[in-house]
Amino acid sequence: MDKIARIDMGAAGGPKVTVAGLGEYAGLGGRAMTSLVIAAEVHPLAHALGAENKLVIAPGMLSGTTGSMTGRLSVGCKSPLTGTIKESNAGGQAAQVLARLGYAALILEGKPHGDDLYKIYINKDGIQVIVDNSLKLLDNYPVIEKLRAEYGDKVAYMSIGSAGERKLLAASIACTDPELRPTRHCGRGGVGAVMGAKRVKAIILDDAGMKMRPPQDPDGYRDANRKFVEGLRKHPVTGEGLPAYGTNVLTNVLNEAGGYPTRNFKGGVFEGAARISGEALAEMEIKRGGSATHGCHRGCVIQCSGIFNDKDGNYVTKQPEYETVWSHGGHCGIDDLDTVARLDFMDDNIGVDTIDMGVAIGVAMDAGIIPFGDREGAIRLVEEVGKGTPLGRVLGCGAEISGKVFGVEKVPVVKGQALPAYDPRPIQGIGVTYATSTQGADHTIGYAIATNILKIGGDVDPLKSEGQVELSRNLQIATAAIDSTGMCLFIAMAIMDQPETFQALLDMLGSFHGITMTGDDVVALGKKVLAAERDFNTRAGFTSHHDRLPRFFYTDPVTPHNQVFSVTDEELDTLFNW
Amino acid sequence: MDKIARIDMGAAGGPKVTVAGLGEYAGLGGRAMTSLVIAAEVHPLAHALGAENKLVIAPGMLSGTTGSMTGRLSVGCKSPLTGTIKESNAGGQAAQVLARLGYAALILEGKPHGDDLYKIYINKDGIQVIVDNSLKLLDNYPVIEKLRAEYGDKVAYMSIGSAGERKLLAASIACTDPELRPTRHCGRGGVGAVMGAKRVKAIILDDAGMKMRPPQDPDGYRDANRKFVEGLRKHPVTGEGLPAYGTNVLTNVLNEAGGYPTRNFKGGVFEGAARISGEALAEMEIKRGGSATHGCHRGCVIQCSGIFNDKDGNYVTKQPEYETVWSHGGHCGIDDLDTVARLDFMDDNIGVDTIDMGVAIGVAMDAGIIPFGDREGAIRLVEEVGKGTPLGRVLGCGAEISGKVFGVEKVPVVKGQALPAYDPRPIQGIGVTYATSTQGADHTIGYAIATNILKIGGDVDPLKSEGQVELSRNLQIATAAIDSTGMCLFIAMAIMDQPETFQALLDMLGSFHGITMTGDDVVALGKKVLAAERDFNTRAGFTSHHDRLPRFFYTDPVTPHNQVFSVTDEELDTLFNW
Repeated sequence: MDKIARIDMGAAGGPKVTVAGLGEYAGLGGRAMTSLVIAAEVHPLAHALGAENKLVIAPGMLSGTTGSMTGRLSVGCKSPLTGTIKESNAGGQAAQVLARLGYAALILEGKPHGDDLYKIYINKDGIQVIVDNSLKLLDNYPVIEKLRAEYGDKVAYMSIGSAGERKLLAASIACTDPELRPTRHCGRGGVGAVMGAKRVKAIILDDAGMKMRPPQDPDGYRDANRKFVEGLRKHPVTGEGLPAYGTNVLTNVLNEAGGYPTRNFKGGVFEGAARISGEALAEMEIKRGGSATHGCHRGCVIQCSGIFNDKDGNYVTKQPEYETVWSHGGHCGIDDLDTVARLDFMDDNIGVDTIDMGVAIGVAMDAGIIPFGDREGAIRLVEEVGKGTPLGRVLGCGAEISGKVFGVEKVPVVKGQALPAYDPRPIQGIGVTYATSTQGADHTIGYAIATNILKIGGDVDPLKSEGQVELSRNLQIATAAIDSTGMCLFIAMAIMDQPETFQALLDMLGSFHGITMTGDDVVALGKKVLAAERDFNTRAGFTSHHDRLPRFFYTDPVTPHNQVFSVTDEELDTLFNW
Repeated sequence: MDKIARIDMGAAGGPKVTVAGLGEYAGLGGRAMTSLVIAAEVHPLAHALGAENKLVIAPGMLSGTTGSMTGRLSVGCKSPLTGTIKESNAGGQAAQVLARLGYAALILEGKPHGDDLYKIYINKDGIQVIVDNSLKLLDNYPVIEKLRAEYGDKVAYMSIGSAGERKLLAASIACTDPELRPTRHCGRGGVGAVMGAKRVKAIILDDAGMKMRPPQDPDGYRDANRKFVEGLRKHPVTGEGLPAYGTNVLTNVLNEAGGYPTRNFKGGVFEGAARISGEALAEMEIKRGGSATHGCHRGCVIQCSGIFNDKDGNYVTKQPEYETVWSHGGHCGIDDLDTVARLDFMDDNIGVDTIDMGVAIGVAMDAGIIPFGDREGAIRLVEEVGKGTPLGRVLGCGAEISGKVFGVEKVPVVKGQALPAYDPRPIQGIGVTYATSTQGADHTIGYAIATNILKIGGDVDPLKSEGQVELSRNLQIATAAIDSTGMCLFIAMAIMDQPETFQALLDMLGSFHGITMTGDDVVALGKKVLAAERDFNTRAGFTSHHDRLPRFFYTDPVTPHNQVFSVTDEELDTLFNW
């Protein structure tokens, strides 16, 4: 990982590849790489779909090594959805392969003039940018099927579906999993639209002939990794809950806490939650010959994913995530896993963020386009997205645009991005994260649910405003660092509770790079990333006034706790004071 | 005009009217009234379609008097289109009648819970708020036809069409002209959507039994008004150009200057300009038995409007304004006045801003939805708006939303509002106004065309950046004051060139109120209004970063002058330094 490839899609005479050393970006990976490049190189007032924007694709600092859990890929740009800086990360195989190919970043720049569609093939010999108009408007599963016929099964694929080509603001970028299904998505913020604007349909990553990245201290790395894995296996969340039930283990937990947003945030408890819970999902997956325990990339020891089959045992989709089950389930008043799984497949195939897509459907339901609970109606709406009809384009642009077009007042977004599956009124810590995140409403960026609800890393009362800013601040700093390592964020569950597991992570980073890594170094890295992101946003015109939840969270109490969001503006404005 | 009526549409048990004295708002009128009320009373982060927003309807300081040109009505709110404060003004009869009824402002507050639609009847005896669901989803012409059958012809009407009821972000509020046609619109910023959100379909203003508002110094007022009218009649623009050809006299002027944005700002000269010019329009109107000279309200001596008939002599619409002819004409590559007139009627009927509507069509053309120049296609698109289809809803939400939904990079908007008919690259002064306006892109708010192109009030080279900020600043200050008087802005043409006409205006204001009014007082009033607006926007999260044109104006030169917008950010940021 000693080089950066820049591909100028708008170069005179066709796309032009330039490969150079790391320069000022040496030592960076994942989100640190994407955010620092975007902050340094993209005009903050650039149009996100224009030639001035860049799409930075970066494996994590430890990706491509023998270390466990190191398969996260970061994609960064100025977001067409939020107008902020954006880092959207995903699992799948791409990060490991790209890292082994030696690239710390691919940077797509410029914008082609014509209508040609391109694919990019990268192997040990270099980078080819190839016109392939046969892929036009194909969705992700057919794209991968077509590419597999040409490039085979020993590669990793990244692609956009029709939504990305159409530059819909909620378009995602798909990464293939170990079985080469396009199921792992950089979902949030419309990164797929930026790839579509650059007319890049797919990236084929072929590491044949390449080796695992070697640590500076191989024995130390092996030893640290062993302790790290032991820690993950020992913790009840990463060792039991996630492997058995996946992220959807949260449905019952959040519903019982009264923090499960139901029917476009009208209530905090969904009467149909049990029917779409992780427990119900796992039972159904196993019964139908799928799987309730599956890893999104090789080297994963948590295995929080799964395989969802239909009642005849045929593959439908990967195990839908908790947030997907919520956005298409409780948020829409739908309590049927077959419907949710079908929608999950459609979202992955068309290439849209399951959160913004589902929230947009709920907003459309609130506008009366279809009734809450209408399973077939929800499927029809997503079909419209795939067809690119005007209605589909609106929905595929996410919840904010849908709310505006349909004249809905209650639209759960911050900085244009839909809120995920946790109501900020009864869980105030996550509200602080939504409001202050550098990237619009996002749960992973400072997952206060851990401490507010799961009581990991301490216990901060979710119903009170006290302590929430400090909690979110510390989580946002830690997350910015973890997102830079290539590590799956779920490791946070274990390292927050188990000091020896955190030490093992530090030792992995240290032994790999031949340095000593301390907790302070991790904090410094996280702050550096957040500072760059915040600086970009400030230059793009964002102020503390944008670090607020939609007004209805301050004015409309929600059942069962009958609370509003009560963290004050003044408290929110201290988040980045460190 | 010694009282303010507040109508709480969300009151328990149904709408509740409260009439009180002027209090802190004494002495204000028009834009000064609307902006100061909104700035003081509306939460800057309120949802524009929510109960917290208010719709303030205010006649000007001199409305309802015998003074000429005093018929402008201001409507203010937080804009659902821009998120800024908004004042949108129109001619027609409403201001005069409302002023004679004694109301300095009507303030619609709250939001009803049910689906009932209301009309508000105001006469000398008071205010009635009446459920009238028979008006549901009617457009403006049928609404007025229906109301005339009930309330007759001796009243003034304000109404919203289907667009306002659907809360489309470009929805307007119509005011009837002397012949009771709903042709004069508070067009910009989606004020109609705010009225729609409050479920108010129409306001009927009946001043039977009321008298002209009496001046403190009747002789002085009569004398000043006479001198004022003489000045207007003497100036070539207000005395000749506007009466003969209307505002569309500008088509040839702007086209010759190379500042006429053609086909979504791709060029500055339209080859079909002569066919849609004011000269061609007047000739056609006269030949077909319409009129090329008509006033939008009684007491107008400029008479810049007209009546457009079809080739069989049947009424189609009022004379389309220059900006309307441009937005549906040159911007869309359409060079046919019958098409433009048909679109003008449809916009007025449905109730949408002709600027944002036309610009949205051009953006849709740029996206390939229909080709540039497609007359029937443009009509079909506006029909979709009237039907409220998904496509129509998108377009009716204006250019910015259309650009996002259709994935268009080149979207001519500032703060979400479409640019009017003047390219800011060859006419840099108007670019300064677009960028820095408190209300999104707007031409009237600081009409630099006067001095850049028409050489009124001086001569500032339109192609250079020098002097543009000072020009725009002075115009914005003067306009904020004029918009508060109830005077039609076109008086500015005469008062900028003729000191004695400006003095006559000061004397009208002074003699009416029994005070001495100086130029400094006018400047102070303008600054007070702008400061309140700017303060609201700052609290709503707007910063200097939002006071910028879209990037393509800085990066893409336009023919024939091959210029980009070159006023620096630093210069723009000095606009409000006075």
